[in-house]
Amino acid sequence: MLIPVILSGGSGTRLWPLSRKNLPKQFLPLAGELTLFQQTVVRARALPDSASPVVVCSEEHRFLVAEQLQALGITDASIVLEPVPRNTGPAIALAALQALQRDPEATLLVLPADHLIGDAGNFTDAVHKALPLAAEGWLVTFGIRPDAPETGFGYIRRGDALGSDAFRVEAFVEKPDRATAEGYLAGGGYDWNSGMFLFQARRLLDELAQLAPAMHAAVADAYQSAKTDLDFVRIDQDAFAQVEADSIDYAVMEKTARAAVVPVHCGWSDIGSWDALWAASERDAADNRLEGDVLALDSHHCYVRASDRRMVAVLGVDDLVIVDTADALLVTRRDRAQDVKQIVEQLKTGERPEHRLHRKVYRPWGSYDSIDMGERFQVKRIVVKVGAALSLQKHHHRAEHWIVVSGTAEVTRDQEVFMLSENESTYLPLGSVHRLRNLGKVPLELIEVQSGSYLGEDDIVRLEDVYGRA
Amino acid sequence: MLIPVILSGGSGTRLWPLSRKNLPKQFLPLAGELTLFQQTVVRARALPDSASPVVVCSEEHRFLVAEQLQALGITDASIVLEPVPRNTGPAIALAALQALQRDPEATLLVLPADHLIGDAGNFTDAVHKALPLAAEGWLVTFGIRPDAPETGFGYIRRGDALGSDAFRVEAFVEKPDRATAEGYLAGGGYDWNSGMFLFQARRLLDELAQLAPAMHAAVADAYQSAKTDLDFVRIDQDAFAQVEADSIDYAVMEKTARAAVVPVHCGWSDIGSWDALWAASERDAADNRLEGDVLALDSHHCYVRASDRRMVAVLGVDDLVIVDTADALLVTRRDRAQDVKQIVEQLKTGERPEHRLHRKVYRPWGSYDSIDMGERFQVKRIVVKVGAALSLQKHHHRAEHWIVVSGTAEVTRDQEVFMLSENESTYLPLGSVHRLRNLGKVPLELIEVQSGSYLGEDDIVRLEDVYGRA
Repeated sequence: MLIPVILSGGSGTRLWPLSRKNLPKQFLPLAGELTLFQQTVVRARALPDSASPVVVCSEEHRFLVAEQLQALGITDASIVLEPVPRNTGPAIALAALQALQRDPEATLLVLPADHLIGDAGNFTDAVHKALPLAAEGWLVTFGIRPDAPETGFGYIRRGDALGSDAFRVEAFVEKPDRATAEGYLAGGGYDWNSGMFLFQARRLLDELAQLAPAMHAAVADAYQSAKTDLDFVRIDQDAFAQVEADSIDYAVMEKTARAAVVPVHCGWSDIGSWDALWAASERDAADNRLEGDVLALDSHHCYVRASDRRMVAVLGVDDLVIVDTADALLVTRRDRAQDVKQIVEQLKTGERPEHRLHRKVYRPWGSYDSIDMGERFQVKRIVVKVGAALSLQKHHHRAEHWIVVSGTAEVTRDQEVFMLSENESTYLPLGSVHRLRNLGKVPLELIEVQSGSYLGEDDIVRLEDVYGRA
Repeated sequence: MLIPVILSGGSGTRLWPLSRKNLPKQFLPLAGELTLFQQTVVRARALPDSASPVVVCSEEHRFLVAEQLQALGITDASIVLEPVPRNTGPAIALAALQALQRDPEATLLVLPADHLIGDAGNFTDAVHKALPLAAEGWLVTFGIRPDAPETGFGYIRRGDALGSDAFRVEAFVEKPDRATAEGYLAGGGYDWNSGMFLFQARRLLDELAQLAPAMHAAVADAYQSAKTDLDFVRIDQDAFAQVEADSIDYAVMEKTARAAVVPVHCGWSDIGSWDALWAASERDAADNRLEGDVLALDSHHCYVRASDRRMVAVLGVDDLVIVDTADALLVTRRDRAQDVKQIVEQLKTGERPEHRLHRKVYRPWGSYDSIDMGERFQVKRIVVKVGAALSLQKHHHRAEHWIVVSGTAEVTRDQEVFMLSENESTYLPLGSVHRLRNLGKVPLELIEVQSGSYLGEDDIVRLEDVYGRA
């Protein structure tokens, strides 16, 4: 059985303000209609004999993962929740243990969730070349054929050929300086280390046990106490916190005698920055990539992304990145795009929410967006998915008015239960116990006007919750 | 009597997206708490013996002018409405006719509403130097002492001295090229033509009658049919449309034998572009002018203006103008700021509302802001001023929900009249005749949720209106 392992734990801070802690880049439709995570899943599903994936993600993103899988019609994935981040070594080890539950002979195709692959055919070919090697017990890494002297990636030096399309790994080399990278590019025999792998689950764990026995033991220990809850495999936080953080490269790949590389030229990008996304995107005649409602005059080599309901006009500018969102706007130079993480660091230091939360917040039941705010009021647009329900809740400091603008709501208010449809409204006095549910066939949209002296998200007492949050 | 004439008809397209047709730059607080218009009025009021002003503006801006004057405690201004724009010649002639109604000996201090003057003391001194000349029948213009070889202004060549602080005007010269401007600056004897004047109303009209008799006759004719309505002097549209458009410079100043110039060095700027505003503003250690919630890293010589409720982060950029508003964002280079009007032209051509209207729209009774919109709904935040009332109205295609979030509303709904206070709501079915009034002592704020198949501003039947709009 070929089981895709989708590593979805990244934070993508360099793609702020679109990518944020609660909605990192892999869950965004940065290139095309599907999110990067969904594209990765679809890419893996397209392989013959591919089983449903094991997804490893942080607990915070579990509903995003479930929802984005569901939108693809995938309901049988294993979603393994890392209670704390521990880098790729422990994440892959967890996935391997989970895969072995399904098939003791499982082969794993490990794919980071936030990579873009332009040429899926070449990628599929490379997987087919790698499969026989994995069957022979090789730990195969996919090496990206360089087309530029990149200094932002590690490289793999090819050793002896293993058949016509693969090589032993002679060495993993760290990110080079510019001159060295130019040498690698000119001389050949080097590939970029993409972080994509193919190996038998059993074999990987055996190597880990031998090369990083402490990590192996700690992960095995943590996995033993895993609990399955709703669709999720929950790893015990205390146990997982004991695991040392390390990459699979350091823990296994650089030490094993059985590392192989299959070179591939597949339009790969790790979308490590806005500049990288610009480079990976189709561009217009002025070499601009314009997303959304953008008017560009006499401007070149720019990446401009407008947000909903606001146009962007650029005039006489070159080589800029402009990314607008509901609550934060970024303007930088493409060649400074790597430093966007400095902004995120400053926002963290200042305890500003913009590094973490979007104005529109996704919840298991749907989403809310704070569309206006005043001294003693807040207005939210709330969308409830078909079949979903908010928790049964009450507030100590605010009353709420609900006006349904689309779909139909079932409203619980203290002892009453009643329906509200489009253009109907109700009032929830301070302290009333209430719940909102969408029993209809279309999404429910409503406008909520909150009125009160304190309007923070933490003024909520959850009495019952179908998502385990009460 | 010294009567200030505030010319408020400008459109300020180069300061888009903040300045728009329905709210041009003179009515914005671009530098300080007061708007440029208010600063101009205050500057004139500070002169000894200054009477209340005559304001000339377009009909569209009449309530803005009235409100901004009222905020300064000025209730006795004459507000003359130009039904169509005809440049400064006819506007000043109208103001002169209006001033003569108050005092046949009136002296006019003509000030464009959209200029910034940093050093009010020097400006006042210059007016005092000019007053005796005006009394002798001179038409005095204020010449700005150049501090740079500007190619964007006309210049005045000084002639013979008139006392120690003034000169005959030898010639008005057109905008020069760079080399000529450098010569003017180096050689001295030239001042920028600021568009500020001091003269007797009677004298100006006599000169106009002699030098531009057709304009004089047409303006006099139009003024004769003027009607005073509320606080406004309304000029008949058909009559005023007959007047030829021309500047006071061409019509009178360049032809009269009695033109004098009083040079002044008063930190003057016409704020003709974002670059000019940057130049006229105090800047930080990195030579940036940052307005609102801006995080600037490693950026220099920029003008950055954030809008409400959204932060702007800039990183590694120099010499940019970034201006954000609720529905449009501009990014350009400072040295291209003059070309912002190209964007406005494109928006006009595309019939996009962003060249004309802000998302927040001012009305005589207060304002509304469209905070959210969907397929069959729209959400507005409505503010009603103390003592103000919306028209008695109805809609054919929408129902409305009103939730009061601050203050108290008197609501008329068909036969009923009732009060709503904070955290109370009501529903106005499609077709109901309704009115909203603020009888309280604080502004009334409410959230309006509109529901219906057509939500355009033009679905309104006004049955009664205190502002003459029914």
